[in-house]
Formats: sequence, structure tokens, C-alpha cells
Amino acid sequence: MSKDPLVIFTPSGKRGRFPVGTPVLTAARQLGVDLDSVCGGRGICSKCQITPSYGEFPKHGVTVASDALSEWNAVEQRYDDKRGLKPGRRLGCQATIQKDVVIDVPPESQVHKQVVRKRAEARDIVMNPAIRLFYVEVQEPDMHDPSGDLERLVGALAKQWDIKDVKADLHILAQLQTILRKGNWSVTVALHMGDGDAAPRIMHLWPGLYEGSIYGLAVDLGSTTIAAHLCDLRSGEVIGSSGLMNPQIRFGEDLMSRVSYSMMNDNGAAEMTAAVRDGMNTLFAQIADEAGIDTGLIMDAVFVMNPVMHHLFLGIDPYELGQAPFALATSDALHLRASDLDLTLHPAARSYILPCIAGHVGADAAAVTLSEAPDKSEDLVLIVDVGTNAEIQLGNRDKVLACSSPTGPAFEGAQISSGQRAAPGAIERVEIDPATKEPRFRVIGCDLWSDEDGFAAAIATTGITGICGSGIIEAIAEMRMAGLLDASGLIGSAAQTGSPRCIADGRTHSYVLWQGSEDSPQITITNPDIRAIQMAKAALYSGARLLMDKLGTDTVDRIVLAGAFGAHISPKHAMVLGMIPDCPLDKVTSAGNAAGTGARIALLNTDARAEIEETVRRIVKIETAVEPRFQEHFVNASALPNSAEPFPILRSVVDLPDVSFNTGGDEGDAGGRRRRRRRG
Amino acid sequence: MSKDPLVIFTPSGKRGRFPVGTPVLTAARQLGVDLDSVCGGRGICSKCQITPSYGEFPKHGVTVASDALSEWNAVEQRYDDKRGLKPGRRLGCQATIQKDVVIDVPPESQVHKQVVRKRAEARDIVMNPAIRLFYVEVQEPDMHDPSGDLERLVGALAKQWDIKDVKADLHILAQLQTILRKGNWSVTVALHMGDGDAAPRIMHLWPGLYEGSIYGLAVDLGSTTIAAHLCDLRSGEVIGSSGLMNPQIRFGEDLMSRVSYSMMNDNGAAEMTAAVRDGMNTLFAQIADEAGIDTGLIMDAVFVMNPVMHHLFLGIDPYELGQAPFALATSDALHLRASDLDLTLHPAARSYILPCIAGHVGADAAAVTLSEAPDKSEDLVLIVDVGTNAEIQLGNRDKVLACSSPTGPAFEGAQISSGQRAAPGAIERVEIDPATKEPRFRVIGCDLWSDEDGFAAAIATTGITGICGSGIIEAIAEMRMAGLLDASGLIGSAAQTGSPRCIADGRTHSYVLWQGSEDSPQITITNPDIRAIQMAKAALYSGARLLMDKLGTDTVDRIVLAGAFGAHISPKHAMVLGMIPDCPLDKVTSAGNAAGTGARIALLNTDARAEIEETVRRIVKIETAVEPRFQEHFVNASALPNSAEPFPILRSVVDLPDVSFNTGGDEGDAGGRRRRRRRG
Repeated sequence: MSKDPLVIFTPSGKRGRFPVGTPVLTAARQLGVDLDSVCGGRGICSKCQITPSYGEFPKHGVTVASDALSEWNAVEQRYDDKRGLKPGRRLGCQATIQKDVVIDVPPESQVHKQVVRKRAEARDIVMNPAIRLFYVEVQEPDMHDPSGDLERLVGALAKQWDIKDVKADLHILAQLQTILRKGNWSVTVALHMGDGDAAPRIMHLWPGLYEGSIYGLAVDLGSTTIAAHLCDLRSGEVIGSSGLMNPQIRFGEDLMSRVSYSMMNDNGAAEMTAAVRDGMNTLFAQIADEAGIDTGLIMDAVFVMNPVMHHLFLGIDPYELGQAPFALATSDALHLRASDLDLTLHPAARSYILPCIAGHVGADAAAVTLSEAPDKSEDLVLIVDVGTNAEIQLGNRDKVLACSSPTGPAFEGAQISSGQRAAPGAIERVEIDPATKEPRFRVIGCDLWSDEDGFAAAIATTGITGICGSGIIEAIAEMRMAGLLDASGLIGSAAQTGSPRCIADGRTHSYVLWQGSEDSPQITITNPDIRAIQMAKAALYSGARLLMDKLGTDTVDRIVLAGAFGAHISPKHAMVLGMIPDCPLDKVTSAGNAAGTGARIALLNTDARAEIEETVRRIVKIETAVEPRFQEHFVNASALPNSAEPFPILRSVVDLPDVSFNTGGDEGDAGGRRRRRRRG
Repeated sequence: MSKDPLVIFTPSGKRGRFPVGTPVLTAARQLGVDLDSVCGGRGICSKCQITPSYGEFPKHGVTVASDALSEWNAVEQRYDDKRGLKPGRRLGCQATIQKDVVIDVPPESQVHKQVVRKRAEARDIVMNPAIRLFYVEVQEPDMHDPSGDLERLVGALAKQWDIKDVKADLHILAQLQTILRKGNWSVTVALHMGDGDAAPRIMHLWPGLYEGSIYGLAVDLGSTTIAAHLCDLRSGEVIGSSGLMNPQIRFGEDLMSRVSYSMMNDNGAAEMTAAVRDGMNTLFAQIADEAGIDTGLIMDAVFVMNPVMHHLFLGIDPYELGQAPFALATSDALHLRASDLDLTLHPAARSYILPCIAGHVGADAAAVTLSEAPDKSEDLVLIVDVGTNAEIQLGNRDKVLACSSPTGPAFEGAQISSGQRAAPGAIERVEIDPATKEPRFRVIGCDLWSDEDGFAAAIATTGITGICGSGIIEAIAEMRMAGLLDASGLIGSAAQTGSPRCIADGRTHSYVLWQGSEDSPQITITNPDIRAIQMAKAALYSGARLLMDKLGTDTVDRIVLAGAFGAHISPKHAMVLGMIPDCPLDKVTSAGNAAGTGARIALLNTDARAEIEETVRRIVKIETAVEPRFQEHFVNASALPNSAEPFPILRSVVDLPDVSFNTGGDEGDAGGRRRRRRRG
């Protein structure tokens, strides 16, 4: 008696023997092979496409004959005629096993397919969305055994898909009878698979087989900008991305001014809540329109944001976040209806808000954790997300620490004499020749450096309007390396530096980066500008140092710069300023909008939601405001690197001239003095 | 070494030994004794009152000394001064155990106290409402261990009350921080204990200890009337009851005319949904106002109704219920927000709708099952709830069958020549002297019989306006017993009966019940009236017979008449008409508004919800429309009882004259003919 045929699935390697005539889909299900199907094997959805391989497979010990699967059948022919099947493809629910066979499941036929992210170092996203489509055939009502239409639909989901205890909202009950009869007792169900405390729940019904897709949003709600990605919940593809200024800006540029607005105005928090929700709806309508889909097909949305935005979006007065002990109303992840947030998506659409880590470390930081996974890192990684507050995480698979440090708005171009937001016209890159002390720069919106031919013409439309955060960092670092600036943060005079660009400016000096033109203002780096950046970088560095102290380490293996700003910072320049700890430059990488990526991961994979909730619970939260060491580090960190000890790696790469422009007058600063004492 | 003191709780009889100094409340909790407490033993809620007993207890083998409990303390004194404690009472959280003691827990100190129902035969209601109050003290925020206010509140509920995984809605998050601080980190929580697929959920917060109560509604939504009881969810007391005409009446008097309205009008179902929900809100506001409470304190509502009302209330078009196979959109119980139903109660109020049994047997019938518990009956009980449809249940602890039978509106006074609803002025009781054939009657709104002194004056305000369902049943039954009516349903002539009240009326005869007066119409019982009642009673009887056939029995042990109508039917007269099977008259009882009682049980005891859901699943549903035996019974059942066989018990009690007024003309009916054949 011969054995049943052997079936081997690739890439999983799962194998088993099945009786002749078993459909490939049935074999896949029994082996737990990840093979998609919406129609449950009825030959109508075509999601279960597979590719049989023929010939010798010495590795698997089988030879596959050309008649290993049943013959191409009428159902497959009809599908091929109508839609086209790729060469070699079969429908897994139609092709039956006849002899030993090796069957490949192509990525697009896998439910839990991976969506490859662009950057190689990042993890792929495994598809496991909260909402999925299921086609079912429902028993007709029987007077001899009376039961509700819903109960028979729920029974069909249990029997045909092994999904138990499915619930439905009233809006589904109101449509159910008509749709079931219209579809002649077959229906496609958009099913929320359940989360938090909730059972699986029917979100939408289509009569018969619905061949379209359903969508979700990953939203990064920043204080300044709301950025959203529209994703296909079946393929995982991003089908549209768009952004909008946060309409709350009219109530205050930064977070603290919005908290103040809520404290000063009776209905202030509610006004800001309405504004941001309105803004969301505008953005979502626009992104859906651009992608050519109906907002009614958007059934899920994931949100990340800082704690103040978190509270304002949820309709919670942020008052308590403005004062010690900075108590959040809630820190856990939230599973809500989108309608609870006044969002006009599908009427039953859900929303998921990532957990906040602490009163100053929000759901956006949790999303960075999810994206960059310090808790899975073998080596010790420092992750810095720079904004008005810097959220800092340090750790590896053993332990992750997190804190927030009040960097203030200098890195965003505020409090800088010629500063501005990163926008066309802003200087974003700077180089200063160490010999001539002459600068060259680049402006946002123009590909040419300022000393290249055609620059003047190229910037005619934008002009040169100011200098943005990355520009000021590079300018100051270049000045330091060119010997125009000493470690205490003082700019030398023309006489001291030999550069006529160092001009007297009150009791200190300024460096003329751009002399101005008919259309453009003069752009200088002043000593107060440098002081502002010193304060900001000291806050950032002190936060990182504090976490390193807590972990008992003096070095980190690598540094990840997250956020839009992080993507534009030059690691070398940041290190010359002492913004970040000493680290090999090739170990300093940018993660881009890691918070947005984290939101997208949570949208497409509900396992990742459970994972980040658990990870956040384990993160050790450090509140800088109550740590005496933070103040101590802060005082020490305002000077720029000079002494080799704290920055030996940096010293080995760049030249930091040992100049001093302090004339013993009143321009010294605490850090400078302290450092001089330490050197003395 | 002496043993720890022995503590015996009554009435539970639970006992255990505890170290000297253990608070009585602690001992009760450890033994699982049902002793209430809202404040968790902090001496502020006074819910844990107990009564120690002193002296000899030979039965328990203990002697209780007068110092068996600790001395009366300052907390108890303060409570006694402020509110008063009954003599002998102590606070269980203050009094500590010193020596062997017997402690009685009075009913009002039990969480799961029983609410005694008026009728002795019915089950008491055990208090176990869906929403309960808990006082907790919440940890203050700590910058060294940051966590959300909600998470600390949830932690307090877990630690202080052992209630895990509590969730909160957005509206709670929006108030949480203010209320916690206002209550100085103590708060009373109204907690929904969880149901269906949902975790426990915070519904309301009060700063500090809330000493008031919370409320719920038990609503019986009838086609004609909406009746509601307002209950205290802590004590179980009914603090208000009220009713309202169902505003849907303007769309059609009976269910089928409302189904037709929805079919004939595009927006018909939606209009009727809005009307009934509006009516509910009017009724709820009125009942709360009468009871002197805020509707915002009403947090739970249970609804029972027939399938058409069920669908219309839920916003589901009842179209499918108007035609075979009478498919319900859903039959299972529903856990909803009251706001989903547009009800203006507490913003987070819940609603629970009992399961429907089948397309013609609704949640009202399930409520009757819950109230009358045929599934727990030792003997075989037939439960009949008479309305436009009669819902019939038959069974005992082994098996329960249910069906609906289309009795039509005759029992409600419709299709009867002088018929009217049960309202002041309607004849509701009738007696006919078998010798003189003269009637006497009573009218709703008047305590006198028509032959008593002062009757004319007493009815001056209401007049005599018609005859209601119970009146017509008694009139016909009395006519039958007085020999004015034969078993086929024909009224004899004056000559045949010797009564001048039997007057010719077309080709048949009518009986003049009331000759009329200046203000009142003549009221007669006509042969078509009798025919209408014969049809209705045949439907009712056939349904009961069908269930008896299915169960293989010819007799039932007892009969329960449910519903407002059931409460007014005289069992003897019903049986003379053959409405109900033969049964000893003292075994025929009225359950009053059993559906309303079932709703109240489900409101006060969530275990009863789970129980009725399970019971309904097990009930065997019989659809009369597809049962050939039903038609057969129906044809046989239109005649009135005469032959001894089917009604031996009845025959032994009342005299059913063996008259026949069929003159061989065209006035015979199928039942009469058939019966004559059987007798022949």
C-alpha cells in the first residue's frame, strides 16, 4: 500500500502527507501554512494563488512530476480569462494534490506578508491588521429551527473561519437582513479581530464577494504638523501621505503656550480639541481624495503624539501636564471608536493610541521605541528624538531607560537672531574653510552651494531668509573647528581670529555668514545665538548623560537620531557641539520619522500593539526635573568639547583648536569657568 | 495556649477562627460572608452594619460574652450621632473580635440581598446589579515612578476591591484629574461590572464618598403601552412606576399595520423608531421627576418587547417579520449603550435587551420565562401570555417548548360589536342567572354590580361605554352555562331559551346584556362576536395543544396566565370557553405583568441575564405556521367544550347544558358539525 503524497510548502518548509484529491488550500490550512483566502476556498477571491515547482528536489528528497497537481480547471480558466493569472500560478483552492509536490506560496498570497521598509537596518512589518475581510455563506432561515440572521452569520464565521463570539453593532443589525438577501446569503465581512477587552466585531458588510480593499491611517500628531500615511490594510502599502499645519498653532506656537491658553480661557482646552480634530478631518478627506478612495473605507487609525497633544486630542485638559508632578490622566494605550474623537471615517472605524511613557515622554516616543526597538538591540543604543523637548532612550535587550529633556526651541530656529523654521530660503548646510575662515552654505529649495556658479540665480525665487536648526548647528560647529569660537562659546574678534567676518557686536562679537543683498537680510551668528544653542545642547547632552549614569556606562555603542530634525543633523557637527555623547561617526544614524514609522507598524500589526504596551510598561522612566545629577550635568555640559577626556573618539576625527577668546571680562560662562578650573 | 476566638455569622452559618483584634468586616470577607461595604472598611459608608448576639448558643456550642467585640468606638459614635444606628447595631469595619461571637448580618447589609416580590409563589430577586459603587483611595502621582491617574485608580480598584482590568471611557478621562484632586485622592466609582464581551468599566466618578444611590429602569415596551419601573440599584426597591401610550399607535393600532406602514413608506420604520424612542424619553423624564431623582443617575435599563417592537426600537426594519420565514435580524440578548438608542439617561448608561425566543416569540416572552421559570418547575406548567398574539410556553425542568399563536385582537375588545379597550366605562365582569337568564355586571371604574343599590349614580361619570376582553369572555361563558348558547357557538332564540333578551338579529340571535339608556348605547353579544372569540380561543387552545402533543402529554399540572389581560381573566370562564386546557381551577393562577417582572429581575441581577440567555437557547421553538397539527387542532377547537372527554375536570365543576340551537340552517360551523359527528 503506497503512502499518501507528500506536500512541501516553501518558504515555510512545512510538510505533510495528504490523501490524493486534497485541495492545496486545505493542506496549507491543516499545516498552518500562511496562505491567504477571503472566500474560504470557493474559487472566487483568487487570494490563494500558489506556484507548484516541478522536477528534482534533492534537498527535500522528492521528485515532482508534471501531474503532481490536478489539471487546470474551469474555475481557474475563468479567473485567468477575466483577470489573468501569472504563468505557473494555480488557485490553491482548485488545484488538488495528486503526487508528491513542492508548492511555493508567493509573498502576495501570504496573509502575514511582510511589508519591506526602505531602510535596510529597520525591521520589516509583518501584516496582521486589526481588521480583515472574510467571505462567508450563511444558512438561510428555517422556520423549523428559528434563529436570527445575525446568529447564523456569526455561526458561519465560526464554522467557516474558526472565529468565535463575533459581535455586531446596531448599524450592522439595521443593514444585515437586506444585505444577506441581496447577496443571496453570501456576504463579505470586514471584521475587527478584537482588542483590549473587546470581542471580534463586524464593522461592515458587502453582499457577495467584495473585491476591493479597506484602509487605515497612521498619524503623527505633532505640535506643529499633523502627518498621516494612508495604508492599504490588505497589502500594507502606503497609498498616500500628506501633512497639515496643526490648527492649534493659532492658540500658541509651543506646547507650554497652549497649556497656558487652556489655563487662561474657560473653554480653551475644548477649543483646541475641536481645532485639532477638525484639522484631522480636513487632512483625512484630502489624503483619501488624493488616493482616490472613499473616507468611508478607512476603518482604522493609529495616533502618536506627545503628552500635551495626547490630552488635547482626547479632550482632556492638559493643565496637570504643565506643573509638577506632571501627572498624565492616562498613560496606557487606548482603543477607541474614531467617532469618539469626532473623526469622519467609516462609521464604525476604530482608533488606537499608543501608550505614553511618562508625563514628558509621550506616545510618539513609544512609537520611536516600536520602530527602533532598543529593547531588542544587542548593543547599547542611544535614541534621541529632538524637538522642543528631546525624548531620549538608552538601552538594549536587558533594559531600556527613557527621559525627556527641555531643550527649548533653539534647535528649531527660535531664539536665534537670524533663525527660522526649516522652510525654503533657510540656510541648512554650512562649511567654513579653516584656512580662510570663509563660509559657503546651502539654502533649502536650492541644490547649489553658495559658492557654485548660478547660485544667485537659483535662489532668486526663495531668497535667503534666515538660518534653520541644522544650519545653525553646522555654522557653530564649523566656527569651532575653524578656530573662530572657543570651547567656552565665545567668538573671537577679527584681530584674534584673523577674519574680518568677526565683527564687534555690542560687548561681544558676531560672525557674518551672509553679508545680505538687496533682497536678503544680513545673516550673522551672534554670541547670544551660541549661548542659546549651548543651553539647548547642554539639556540634550545632560539627559543622555543622566541615562548613561543610571545604566552605569560612560559610552554607547551607537546613536540613532530620530525625527525630521534628526534626519537633517550632521552627526559630526552635532558631536563637535557636544550635543550627543562621543561615538564613532559611522555609528550615528538617522531614523527619519521613526514615530510615524512606529504608528504604521502599529496600524498594520496588532501584535506590535501588544508588544509596545508591554515594552512601555518595562521601560524605566527617569524624570529629569527631580534628578540632582541632571542639573549637575547641565552645568558641566554648556561648554563645547575641548578636553579630550569626554570625547576621545571625536578628537581622533576632527580638529578642535585649543583657542580661548575670554579676555577675563564679563563674557565668561559658568561652564567655561568650570572647565578652566578643571584644566587648571 | 488558647485558640483564636470562633466567629459564627448568621444567617449564612459560615464560621472560622480569627486572631483577637480582627475587624468583623475582615472576618466576613475572608469567610466569603455577604457583608456590604462601599468604603472598603474605612468607617465612612456605614453599609457594613452587623448585630452581635450575646448569651448561650447551644446549637453552635458557644457562649458569647458581652465583651466579645471591642468597645463602641469614636467612629461608631460619630455615625450614631449623625445618622443614628439601630439599637444593637455595630459597624463591621470598626468592631473587632475579642472572644467567641455570633454575628448576624441583617438583610440590608447584604450585597446580594433579596428583594421580596409580592406574590408568594414567585422567586425572590437576588441583588446583583450590573453597576455598583466602590469607594477607593488612590495613590498620588510620584515623579520618581510616573504613571497615569487612571492607571493608579485602576490599580486601587484591583488592590482594594480585587476588580481587575477596569477600563474607562473618554468622558471619564476628561473629568478624572479634577475629581481625584477635588476628593483629595479619594473617589467613589460607579462601576459597570462587565458583560457580554466587555471588561468592567468606570461609568461615573464622585469626589470622596458618594452617599446617594444609582438607578435603573425595567421597561416593558408593548405595542399599545410602554410601562417602566424605576428601581434603586442598591436596595432593589421600585421607587417609581409609570406608563405611556406607545406613540407608534399613530402609525397603526396593531403590529401588522405598523409592519405595513414601514413597507408602504420609505422612511416608515425610521419614523416609528424615532417615535418610540421619543416616547421612552418622555416617560423616563416623567418617572424620574415623580421619584425626585435626576435622569443622569439612571445608569442601566432593561427592555422587553415583542419581536416587531424589538426591531422597531432598535432601528431595524421589521419587514422580514411580516412574512415567512419570519427571520429576526438578531435573536440574542443585546448589551448596548443607552445612547445608541437615543435615550437621555446618564451619558454612559447601558441598556440590556433580553433575547428573543423566535420570530413570533419575543424578549417579552423570554422575560415571562425568567419570571415564571418553567425551566425550574417540578410539575408541568403551561404559561399563556395573551395579547394580539398569544405566547405559549409548556414545560418543566426537563424541557420547555414555546410557540406563538395568532389570536388576533378579539380578546382586546376589537372585532367585537360592542367591544372596547379595558378602560373606565367598559363592562369587565358578567354573571347570568341560570334560572332567570338575567345578567348583572360590573363596569371598570365602579365598585358596584349593576343590580346593586346606587349603581346608576356610581356610573354617572363613566357611563357604560362597551365591553372589554375579560367582559366578553365572562359574558359568553355565562351564556353557555345558562343554556343561552350551545357548544357550536349559536345563541338560542327567545323561544328556545325562554329569555326575552335573546333577540333576532339578522339570521341569528343576539343577547341583550344592557338595554342602553339615555347616555349609554345598548350592549349586545352577537353571534359574530361569539364567532370572533371562538376563533381567538381556538388559536390559543390549538397552540397549547400543539405543545402538549410535542411533549406527548394530554394534561398539564398547572396553568399560569400572564400579562395584564391574564390578570383579569377568570380561570373558570376561560375554561368554559375552552381557551385553556382542562386543569383544576385552583391550579390556574395569574402572574400579573410577568414580562415586566422578568425585566426587573434582569435589571437587578446580572446572573439572571446569563441564565435567561442560556435558557432561551435551550427552549424548543415551535413555529405554528408550519405545523399541520396546529391547523388540525384549530379546526377542532372552535367549538365550545361540551363532550366530557377533553374537559373532565371542568365538567366536574360547572354545568354545561347540552343544548343545541342549530336549526339545520346555514348557521352551523365546522367545529360544531364535527363535534356533532363525534357525538353521533
